[in-house]
Amino acid sequence: MAGIANLIIARLEYGNVSFTTGNSIRFTVFGESHGPAIGGVLDGLPSGFEINTGEIAKWMDRRRPGQSEITTRRSEPDTVKIISGVTEGYTNGGPVAFYIENSDVMSEHYSELEYKPRPGHADITMYEKFGKHRPYAGGGFASGRLTAPLVAAGSICMQVLFSHGVSIISYIDRIGGVSMENTPACDQDYPYTFKTRIPDTAVDTEAHAAIIRAMGEGDSLGSSIQTIVTGIKPGVGEPFFNSVESEIAKMMFSIPGIKGVEFGKGFGFSASSGSNVKDEMHVEDGGIRFNANNNGGVLGGISNGMPITFRVAVKPTSSIRKEENTVDLRSMTNSTIRIQGRHDPCIGIRALPVVQTSTAIVLLDLLFAGGYLGRIHS
Amino acid sequence: MAGIANLIIARLEYGNVSFTTGNSIRFTVFGESHGPAIGGVLDGLPSGFEINTGEIAKWMDRRRPGQSEITTRRSEPDTVKIISGVTEGYTNGGPVAFYIENSDVMSEHYSELEYKPRPGHADITMYEKFGKHRPYAGGGFASGRLTAPLVAAGSICMQVLFSHGVSIISYIDRIGGVSMENTPACDQDYPYTFKTRIPDTAVDTEAHAAIIRAMGEGDSLGSSIQTIVTGIKPGVGEPFFNSVESEIAKMMFSIPGIKGVEFGKGFGFSASSGSNVKDEMHVEDGGIRFNANNNGGVLGGISNGMPITFRVAVKPTSSIRKEENTVDLRSMTNSTIRIQGRHDPCIGIRALPVVQTSTAIVLLDLLFAGGYLGRIHS
Amino acid sequence: MAGIANLIIARLEYGNVSFTTGNSIRFTVFGESHGPAIGGVLDGLPSGFEINTGEIAKWMDRRRPGQSEITTRRSEPDTVKIISGVTEGYTNGGPVAFYIENSDVMSEHYSELEYKPRPGHADITMYEKFGKHRPYAGGGFASGRLTAPLVAAGSICMQVLFSHGVSIISYIDRIGGVSMENTPACDQDYPYTFKTRIPDTAVDTEAHAAIIRAMGEGDSLGSSIQTIVTGIKPGVGEPFFNSVESEIAKMMFSIPGIKGVEFGKGFGFSASSGSNVKDEMHVEDGGIRFNANNNGGVLGGISNGMPITFRVAVKPTSSIRKEENTVDLRSMTNSTIRIQGRHDPCIGIRALPVVQTSTAIVLLDLLFAGGYLGRIHS
Amino acid sequence: MAGIANLIIARLEYGNVSFTTGNSIRFTVFGESHGPAIGGVLDGLPSGFEINTGEIAKWMDRRRPGQSEITTRRSEPDTVKIISGVTEGYTNGGPVAFYIENSDVMSEHYSELEYKPRPGHADITMYEKFGKHRPYAGGGFASGRLTAPLVAAGSICMQVLFSHGVSIISYIDRIGGVSMENTPACDQDYPYTFKTRIPDTAVDTEAHAAIIRAMGEGDSLGSSIQTIVTGIKPGVGEPFFNSVESEIAKMMFSIPGIKGVEFGKGFGFSASSGSNVKDEMHVEDGGIRFNANNNGGVLGGISNGMPITFRVAVKPTSSIRKEENTVDLRSMTNSTIRIQGRHDPCIGIRALPVVQTSTAIVLLDLLFAGGYLGRIHS
Repeated sequence: MAGIANLIIARLEYGNVSFTTGNSIRFTVFGESHGPAIGGVLDGLPSGFEINTGEIAKWMDRRRPGQSEITTRRSEPDTVKIISGVTEGYTNGGPVAFYIENSDVMSEHYSELEYKPRPGHADITMYEKFGKHRPYAGGGFASGRLTAPLVAAGSICMQVLFSHGVSIISYIDRIGGVSMENTPACDQDYPYTFKTRIPDTAVDTEAHAAIIRAMGEGDSLGSSIQTIVTGIKPGVGEPFFNSVESEIAKMMFSIPGIKGVEFGKGFGFSASSGSNVKDEMHVEDGGIRFNANNNGGVLGGISNGMPITFRVAVKPTSSIRKEENTVDLRSMTNSTIRIQGRHDPCIGIRALPVVQTSTAIVLLDLLFAGGYLGRIHS
Repeated sequence: MAGIANLIIARLEYGNVSFTTGNSIRFTVFGESHGPAIGGVLDGLPSGFEINTGEIAKWMDRRRPGQSEITTRRSEPDTVKIISGVTEGYTNGGPVAFYIENSDVMSEHYSELEYKPRPGHADITMYEKFGKHRPYAGGGFASGRLTAPLVAAGSICMQVLFSHGVSIISYIDRIGGVSMENTPACDQDYPYTFKTRIPDTAVDTEAHAAIIRAMGEGDSLGSSIQTIVTGIKPGVGEPFFNSVESEIAKMMFSIPGIKGVEFGKGFGFSASSGSNVKDEMHVEDGGIRFNANNNGGVLGGISNGMPITFRVAVKPTSSIRKEENTVDLRSMTNSTIRIQGRHDPCIGIRALPVVQTSTAIVLLDLLFAGGYLGRIHS
Repeated sequence: MAGIANLIIARLEYGNVSFTTGNSIRFTVFGESHGPAIGGVLDGLPSGFEINTGEIAKWMDRRRPGQSEITTRRSEPDTVKIISGVTEGYTNGGPVAFYIENSDVMSEHYSELEYKPRPGHADITMYEKFGKHRPYAGGGFASGRLTAPLVAAGSICMQVLFSHGVSIISYIDRIGGVSMENTPACDQDYPYTFKTRIPDTAVDTEAHAAIIRAMGEGDSLGSSIQTIVTGIKPGVGEPFFNSVESEIAKMMFSIPGIKGVEFGKGFGFSASSGSNVKDEMHVEDGGIRFNANNNGGVLGGISNGMPITFRVAVKPTSSIRKEENTVDLRSMTNSTIRIQGRHDPCIGIRALPVVQTSTAIVLLDLLFAGGYLGRIHS
Repeated sequence: MAGIANLIIARLEYGNVSFTTGNSIRFTVFGESHGPAIGGVLDGLPSGFEINTGEIAKWMDRRRPGQSEITTRRSEPDTVKIISGVTEGYTNGGPVAFYIENSDVMSEHYSELEYKPRPGHADITMYEKFGKHRPYAGGGFASGRLTAPLVAAGSICMQVLFSHGVSIISYIDRIGGVSMENTPACDQDYPYTFKTRIPDTAVDTEAHAAIIRAMGEGDSLGSSIQTIVTGIKPGVGEPFFNSVESEIAKMMFSIPGIKGVEFGKGFGFSASSGSNVKDEMHVEDGGIRFNANNNGGVLGGISNGMPITFRVAVKPTSSIRKEENTVDLRSMTNSTIRIQGRHDPCIGIRALPVVQTSTAIVLLDLLFAGGYLGRIHS
């Protein structure tokens, strides 16, 4: 009888369910940084929702490069062309597919990158996983450029949520050594009136100076982003693998450069005693109210009606204007690289609308999955 | 023609894909804290892998209550009864289903909980989501008791990984105000030789004293758990929604009490400049080596061959022996509760093997999904 | 630079998403024919539905072996032990996990099967796929025995559907050369009052005689099963990959022995002209009515409000009491086998409740997925 | 305490996982018949496979309207524009996204269809499910036009399969009352040399005459399509919900107009006795061979190495040039419709390449899912 060999680790390579996420609302992203276009398919929206394309453009602009002296000067108009799922301005029940042309590609900056992986980037892992046919220019499909479709889809989901009383506010609360401690009372737009998206005039000024200083040194800065979601009723999310925290974290860690996610008091819990972080309850206006929100609006994976709050850590831009040690993949010898091209000194600023709008995709999915949101036929 | 009403937020309620996770290796958990049994189904293992039931028991023991003076005294033998998927000690290719009986249930401690939600617990959100027919005793299916099946399944996955050179080491690096700064050189078993699972004699002693002190005050302590995975080849994980970070974080946030996850330098990146956290490369022994591992073994969602490192934040046990404010759901009036029963003063100690073994489920899934692991028929 | 080899067909073997199905209502099956127990997990039911265990038992009895002279005499009480998801008789919102003990296993009849695959059975393909560690006794997890958990889960789903006006009627309309042409007007129970489940006294008698004759010759007979679902509102199912037909067919072809599925006029369409099979519409009582139902209640994958009708083809039992040619896997030489043990002469009779109840799983999934069914919190 | 109402059938409406299918190879379709473009995303292909765009065009041409006197004269060039996933002619590991412009849309033929659903079409169910904002022109996203992206994606999958020895042959074996009984020995291209795709000169001539006759009468004809897959090794597919039959049937029933699927002897089994349909085995050239293939290459859901054979039933085109009874949705009164525009008298002819190429998507998915196909890094 035929025998069977032991399990092996074969260096096999093929894809996985990589470019689609979600259960009831599903999003597929496609494209490469330097390909002809990037885009996405947002599937699961009910028919009859009026899409405000101005809102989509507003959020695309907030992520768009070339906005100021402290963001990269690559200039993409980033117009979202919707090719299905919308009829006469309303969702029609089919998948909303769209694309965004890549118009300002300067691949000459990237030719060296075919064989010299940039430290901190996915160049080396894309090479290891996908081999010589990977799209190496500009990071290919591992590029931050692919967050543009996330913003497009997310801004549509935000409209649906907003029309049902759900608001998602995000702002930067730290850039390098400069941080803002208080929670601001503000709407979705307010943080974008600040250069650094830190909604505090003094801290913004200080952080802006730090960024200018880092730019002068050819360096970059890390940051963190705080998000506050209001209007989510109690009961959304699941006790285990589809907890609110699991689903949000899965999305956040899909965004290039995000390396940490914490809910409510987060890592602050580690140094606390239980008596100091309890979220006690009382009755008010006939409803249950919490005395505190250390848990960030989620208990046992399920929303409790308090604002859902979470913070993400963003890496400093890996591309810095300093010579770095790397390897030459052709000769497998040591080499160095000095990255050219246009880069943000603090990618957190452009990651901000990505974090914010992609949160909307997750929450809308959870609302539909849980049956909290639906359409009643008359 | 029939019109269509606007989208509504209906307080509809039904389930979602809540109790199953994974793509190529899938795990379904079931059971309630005070039901007849808990268990799980681990689907996707190839046939022909020899299961060491002693290893399963070893990990169950590490999570098991009643082990020492600083863990809860509920005493469950937690014997894992495998009822399918294993024939004569080997996986047979079918789903591995198992159950664990609940033998030491003292529900009388919980009767009050039907109408008085414990602060910090899922009692209130389970009530909001599932209503009066939810299983309220002991947290029902939102209880930490359901992590026992995770450990059972995870310990099987760990065996498969270990036989292919993958090792997962976890230890506690902080309990309340006491923390361990250095990275220990140790194997999987070493941390379990310490009372607090902090693998440093001095810090362990100090932390143990802090726990005893907290217990005396009827209080509890938060903690954090560090995990280091070695032996994962480059190329595992996907650039977007199934990144190594996304998949691990999704699992971690499924574990009750986990409120933060960070990879590599994590939130430390926020305060850093790019030049200080670059993971440069060089050639050594014909292979690519990294000079540092700030990114925790993952670049662009894909493993780079360095150890995968991540830390999770664990809440202080929410059950404390102090009177707390809550509500009475019957009368919708303010009330108080003083939680009885047996509880761990620092649940991080028992969460440790859960974090560790459930990581194995995620990684085995990613290895199979990416085609890195397979069985060659002879 | 490292090159990449061409794609290969490696004889790798590992599992897939095999033992779970469904989107909003998910069902996982486990167990082996001759293992300690079989069972399943039904996930996604809302809390608060009262489960009638008598109904479950009724359907289990209808599938159960040992009922009459024309079904196999293996005698299993097939008691369904629910271990989670139900509290005090009501669903609690968690996964409904259950198991059924295998009590009457006579493995001695099967020892030869380790190396002599039975023609028409999965013995050879289980060997090819899972190798020597596969569970060969009684077909392992490819056995018809695993349809018992389908019936258990399906009978729960039927209760939910029935309480909302959906009725699923199945009956046998052909056994070998004997067929019933008319559509009977009957309820769910009526066909089970006939020995052969053909709800027509004359045809039943004739078919029964044919089965007795086949048994006498050590032979078996094929059959077909007709199903009629009433009460499904228009709008259920999706235009493409989750069409009503796709989802039902996927489930039907999971049932061992099913080799064909057709909706409405089915293969009769192939020989028709369009003008003869048109389902015209008119208005009646203010609603849209169809003049005919050639399309079996589904247009473009979506229910149209007419009864959903489909027929499945069931193979003759592959186990017959005649010597058959096979191979000896030990020596890889020709051999013969004469199957011992207890077998149904017409498995369609016992497949009937499997087809019927598993249809309920699919339809409930589609109803929840489409948001047609939900629970309103008061 | 708040109570909970009973389950209700709410006429809620929202989407499901409708437009994506597959596990390891995933395909998402988008677009509407009369929107700006249709397209798809094929995700999961490994990098490094050379794409022959001429082959894609060949298959698109075979499905394309306007080819002969017996297919509709709508003339679409149907050029497939790939916008991601392919770099310099090779797959790069990312999702292959493409679109096809809709250039020859004559919507004026369809204006009446907003309120007069065509019998046999999805017009009425699209209205019931998606309401007034559905895209009604030309069937919207329930149109056969969306099978063009299926063919584009399927023709890529066919190339991968073909390079590994897998061949998929499909031909028409019945049109209305005319059928071909013998199995032809032919390659993939041969059936397309016949006007009716029936690869038998005499039968082709007869069927062609029948179609011309039906056209003259303003009528249409049903058909059936036979598919034969060779080169699939034993062991592909799963014993239960992902059986070869389940996965193929799910795809087939996604194709508009398909109403029946049978494997091997299919419905012929129903009238058979077991002794006449047994697939006995013998040893030949050191391997296991089957004496017959009644089971169509699949046993217990798993391939046995014999050709996988299946037949699908195709409805007569629902659009006929005869006055039909329907309803007016504006006034909810009886009405009639006489369908204008260009329509195929026998849609089976154009469904043929859809059935054939979409089978390739399913099989490639199963091969990757089972680990049978992979890429070895050198």
